[in-house]
Order: sequence, then structure tokens, then C-alpha cells
Amino acid sequence: MYKIEEVSNGVCASQGFYADGISAGLKANAAKDMAFIYSDAECKIASVFTTNKMTAAPIRHFRAKGEFKTNFVLINAKNANAMTGKAGIKDIDEILSHCSEDVINPLMSSTGVIGVRLPKQKIIDGMRLFDLSVKNPNAAANAIMTTDTFSKEKAFKITFEDGSSFIIGAMAKGAGMINPAMATMLCFITTDALVSKDEMQEILDEVTLTTFNAASVDGDTSTNDTVMLLANAKSKTYQREAFKEALHKIMLFLAQEMVRDGEGATKLVTYKVTGAKDNKEAEKVAKALSDSLLVKTALYGEDPNWGRIASTVGAAGVEANEETLSISFNDLCVYDKGQLLFDGTMEEKASQVMKLDRFTISCDLGIANGVFTSYGCDLGHEYVKINADYRT
Amino acid sequence: MYKIEEVSNGVCASQGFYADGISAGLKANAAKDMAFIYSDAECKIASVFTTNKMTAAPIRHFRAKGEFKTNFVLINAKNANAMTGKAGIKDIDEILSHCSEDVINPLMSSTGVIGVRLPKQKIIDGMRLFDLSVKNPNAAANAIMTTDTFSKEKAFKITFEDGSSFIIGAMAKGAGMINPAMATMLCFITTDALVSKDEMQEILDEVTLTTFNAASVDGDTSTNDTVMLLANAKSKTYQREAFKEALHKIMLFLAQEMVRDGEGATKLVTYKVTGAKDNKEAEKVAKALSDSLLVKTALYGEDPNWGRIASTVGAAGVEANEETLSISFNDLCVYDKGQLLFDGTMEEKASQVMKLDRFTISCDLGIANGVFTSYGCDLGHEYVKINADYRT
Repeated sequence: MYKIEEVSNGVCASQGFYADGISAGLKANAAKDMAFIYSDAECKIASVFTTNKMTAAPIRHFRAKGEFKTNFVLINAKNANAMTGKAGIKDIDEILSHCSEDVINPLMSSTGVIGVRLPKQKIIDGMRLFDLSVKNPNAAANAIMTTDTFSKEKAFKITFEDGSSFIIGAMAKGAGMINPAMATMLCFITTDALVSKDEMQEILDEVTLTTFNAASVDGDTSTNDTVMLLANAKSKTYQREAFKEALHKIMLFLAQEMVRDGEGATKLVTYKVTGAKDNKEAEKVAKALSDSLLVKTALYGEDPNWGRIASTVGAAGVEANEETLSISFNDLCVYDKGQLLFDGTMEEKASQVMKLDRFTISCDLGIANGVFTSYGCDLGHEYVKINADYRT
Repeated sequence: MYKIEEVSNGVCASQGFYADGISAGLKANAAKDMAFIYSDAECKIASVFTTNKMTAAPIRHFRAKGEFKTNFVLINAKNANAMTGKAGIKDIDEILSHCSEDVINPLMSSTGVIGVRLPKQKIIDGMRLFDLSVKNPNAAANAIMTTDTFSKEKAFKITFEDGSSFIIGAMAKGAGMINPAMATMLCFITTDALVSKDEMQEILDEVTLTTFNAASVDGDTSTNDTVMLLANAKSKTYQREAFKEALHKIMLFLAQEMVRDGEGATKLVTYKVTGAKDNKEAEKVAKALSDSLLVKTALYGEDPNWGRIASTVGAAGVEANEETLSISFNDLCVYDKGQLLFDGTMEEKASQVMKLDRFTISCDLGIANGVFTSYGCDLGHEYVKINADYRT
């Protein structure tokens, strides 16, 4: 038996972890643009990276190191250090050579524009402003934001009946390019749990599938996506089930926050797909729905256009037919196994659901027992505005 | 030896074909909303339909008939007759029972809103306005439009050295939901060539792959997509190579016109992918590029953000790496096998290309010899406006 309760302090909630965000002049107006996470004890690392073949330099730098422990991650916004070749990796080595002596195997993570070399000197100068004894998790969470409109943090304390406990804390950035197959999202998770490297990697992989990989803003997959889990074991406590449950809660929260803060998004919609041939087919449908431009724009218009939902299900490349399909907006069934239920009264009710900030669209395919749930947002003028003029 | 020359009159260019468009009160303001194509001799039929599992009633009606010839197709806009179950098919039978006596095995094709029964009486009343002796192809092409902003027609005459000739004419509607795997597009092609049913089906399938299936507006696939080729053999002339070449010219033109008239589109962009592991992988990349929201919005913003091109190539799920990739905007190479060429001067030149109405983005993957070319447009505020409020 254990209880999971929310605690404050994000990535600094876990014992022995420190973080801060500073301005190195990468963003305009002296906004915070560089962050660190530091642990006063060495950390095991679990990670999930982008599947994009144009993997950014920080990820290739990480992978080239082989097996290692670390206690320091440097994160910068505004420049992704992607498509920068071997020079991009050398830049990281040079920057990290300026770390303080307390730092072991330092890592770097970047987000921002692709195809431009890092402003090395600015970053090295910025690092002088780091104070590794500071716990300022919100400043760190703010510094890593790009087009995010709010910072994303969460921490849980897991307490057992004997009074022992451990903590998992996290921060993330998302907003652009969020996608089922990972996106320009960075997520850093700290824990003082006494977990083995292999076990935490296994759990991280599993939890990613139903959280970050079930969240979509625009269907693109970035060069830099990173989820990194650092464990310093300082609590000397661990239990697999509790760890997994708490990690899932954190990652689901952050994934939903990212979608809710999708570029220009005004709604968080849960797509609950049931009755598919198998879970894989349910996943295809759920992701097709959260990716569909026609569905997203109908959401933005608060138009209960269930025909687009049906059409998207039909186009998902899975077993489906109109005679067994049912579609609901929250508890309101708008199409039931071939029955056209939609009339003026129902349209009025459905429109009320569409006006909510958060609601669920359920599709039961009526074929077998496959299930999957994905998370998506609407797409409106703000998305176009943000993305038509992002680089400049 | 043969020559292919453009002729006027769209679907009525081929001998023995008649067409007109009338208003049956389905669209507002007495706009034309119903069309017919009639041939005074029976036609063999070749067809390509949507891959969407929620196949609309007209397509299921067609498929249920088995092997047959026809001389009449009725087309309506504003209502897709999709998700309407068996009742939707009965509606078609009832409507077509009101055809004139000259008509053999009449067909129906629909485009518009999903999930609403056809306004049967309006359509039956509208059919009384049809005059099968009229050749008014542009009225027909206008009547089938939905969110299209211009009608789409083309015809070619193919003449051989001995003076014999045949004609292929066509009309299409597109605009919304255009997608590599077919879309709410209808395309009707007439020919007086003396072609066998099997051969014209084989050629139609092949030509579709590099024309309509290589065109993308928003990545969705509708319930109603139809390409129908009607051949009445009246010219008594045929030659495979000439037929295929002319059909390809017509379908490529119409596919490009659809993309150019994509909802809110301001640009037609050709994505020429070369150097992929094989043609299949090149196709994946080309379609990923024409579907990417981030690429589309960058185009709309006329922002030469080649990093998004690189990132989309990397995310396409094919063999690719930054050391062998090259990217060009028309003839301007902006990234060359790991070399960051982009500077202020180049940005200025690239911006000039981005301002064009039509240009080509070339990606050479530098892996092997796979090639594919796709066609896409930008995505801007008009798309959002059109789709956020389509049904209402």
C-alpha cells in the first residue's frame, strides 16, 4: 500500500536536485533561455529520444558516450543545434568543458531553430550565471519554453505504510510540433527513488506509449525530442508499481498540458477509441483523429460535425464500417450503428459539448476489443500565425 | 507517331457526350448544384474510388451492380449521401428511377456534407430541368463544385499520322480534403477512344498513382472520392501509348489545379524527391512533405525555413541522414550534404523563390535511386476559416 500526493517544486522536489533558469541573451528582452538540472549525487539515466532520422547534435552527443552516469544537464532554448553535423557535436563538447568542477559527464539538450550553429560564446558566458546550490525549478521550466504560453511542471511524493517515501518531479516544454511519435518536446524527470537503470528504462518506455506518444498537436516529429529521467537514489526507497503509477500520472499530466498549450490551441480533446480489431488498430484510429486537420478545424469552429469523425475513422486504414460504428461527444451519442440520430435538438446539445475547454470524443468501432486513448487539440488562426512566421 | 493538342469543351469534347449543370435548390442563391453526363452510345466504365471504409452510398450502389455499361451519370453537390446506410442506397434507386427512357443503368455521384439523407424530392424535381441534348460542360463543371473557387476542365485530341483521332475530356472538383490516398474529389473523364474496359482500368489505376494520389491539400481522405472514366468508342480509334500519355496529362493538370485551389491555398509546390532507397521510400518522403503542417505554414509565411524540410524528411520513416541530404528551392541549393550554406544573401534569394505562386522543393536523399514527385499547397488563415465553419 502506498499513497501518491502532489508536492511542489517540480524537478527540485526530489532530494538532492537543483535547477535554475537564466538569461544568456538567446531570447529577446532578457527572457530566461538557459536552464540546468544538477544533482549532488550521480544519477542513473533513462531516456527516450526522437525517431527523426535528422537527430539533433545533443542526442548524437548523448548516444556517443555509451554507458555512463551524470549529475548535470544544460538546456538551451532558441537554437536546436540540429542539422549542424560534426561541428554541432564539437560545439557541445566545447561548451560543456566550461562546466564547474562538481559536474560529472555533463549533458546538453537544445530546442529552437534548426540549421544554425549554437551561439557558443553566449552560452558559455551564460553558464557563469549558474549557481548549482539554487532550487529554482520554475525559472528552469520557464527558460526551456519556446512557443509555450505557460510552463509545465509537476511532482509527486509516493509514501509507503512504513513511512518511507520517494519523489518524482518533472518539467517539460512542448507547444510546437507535438506528435504521437514524439515531438519538439523536452521533458526532464528527476527522482530520488532507488531504481535500477534497466527497470526505469523499461517503465519509461512503456509509460511513454500512452502519454507523450498519445499526444498530438500537429503530427510533426522534431529533430530534438527528449524525455530524460535522472535517478540519484537518495531516498533509498523504491517499489515498481508505485513508481510506474506516479510516473504515468506525471507524464500524462505533462502530455495533456502540452496539448492544451498546443500552438494556438483552445481545447483539449480526449479521443477514446474502443471496439477496434485490436489495440494497434485502436491506436491508429485514435491518432488519425487527433491528427486530422478537418477534425481539428471543426473543433476550433465548435462545429459538431460528426461526419468528419466518421470519415476519419474510415480513412485510418483499419477494419471499420458504418453499421457497427458509434460516436459520442462526452455522454451524448450522436451516431449509433447506422442510426442517424442527429437533428436540431441533438445539434444544440452537441454544440454545448463542443464549447467546453475539455471533452471526450468516443468512437466504438463495434468490431472487437481493441482500445486506445489519444489527446489532441483544435487548430485555429493562432497556429497559422505562429507557424507561418516562426523563424523570423 | 501522334500529336496531342488541347481542345475546348471538357467532358463534351469527346464525340457523343453531353453534359449540363442546373440549380435544384441544394446550394443557396440558385447556384448550379446538379450535373449530368450523358452519352448517346453505351459506355464501358473504369473507376477508382476512395479507400475510406465509410464508403458513401453512391459508391456502394455502383459496386453492387457488378459488371455493366452505362450512358448516364447524375452528380449532386451539397450532400455526400455518406453514413446514410441502406436508406442512402434506396434513395439513389428511387431518384434514378425518374431518369428519362434514353438512359441505361444510370449512376449517381455525390459530394457535400456527411450524415444527412439526400433531399430526394429536390433532386427529382431538378432532374426535370435536364436536357440530354445539351453540351454545356462548363455548367456541369461549376455545378459539382463545393469549396472550389474555380471550375476544373480539360480536353485533349490525339491525332495519328493517318488522320484518325480520339478525344479525352474531363472535369473535376476538389478543394477540400485532397489527399495522397484520394480525397473529396470527383473526376469524370469521357473518351470516344475504342479502348477495352480492362485496358482502360489498368491505365487509369497506373496514372492515378502519380497524379491524384500524389496531390495533397490536408491529408484527409473522404468517403466519396471518385474518378470515373467513360468510353463510348465512337471514334473507333485507339492506341495505348497515346491514350496513356493524354490521360496522364489531363489527370496531372486536374490534380495540380485541385491543389492550387486547395482550401485557402496561395501556392502550388512540387516536391521532387530523389536519391531515396527506393521509389516507395521516395513516395513516403514526398507525401510527408506535402502533408506537413509545419512545411505548409512556412510556405504560407513565405519563410525559407529549410530546417522544417529536413526535419520532415527525417520524420518520414525512411533511410535518411544529414550527411547525404541536399535541399533546393528551385535551382537554389540551400543545404548540401552536411554543409550549412544558409546566410543572409542566400536567405534573400530563397525568400524570392518562396514568393512565387509555383515552385519546386527538391530533396536528394543521397542514398540510392528512388524517386517520387508530389504536389502540395500552403495552409493559411483561409483554410481555417473554411473548415472551422463548413457545415453551418
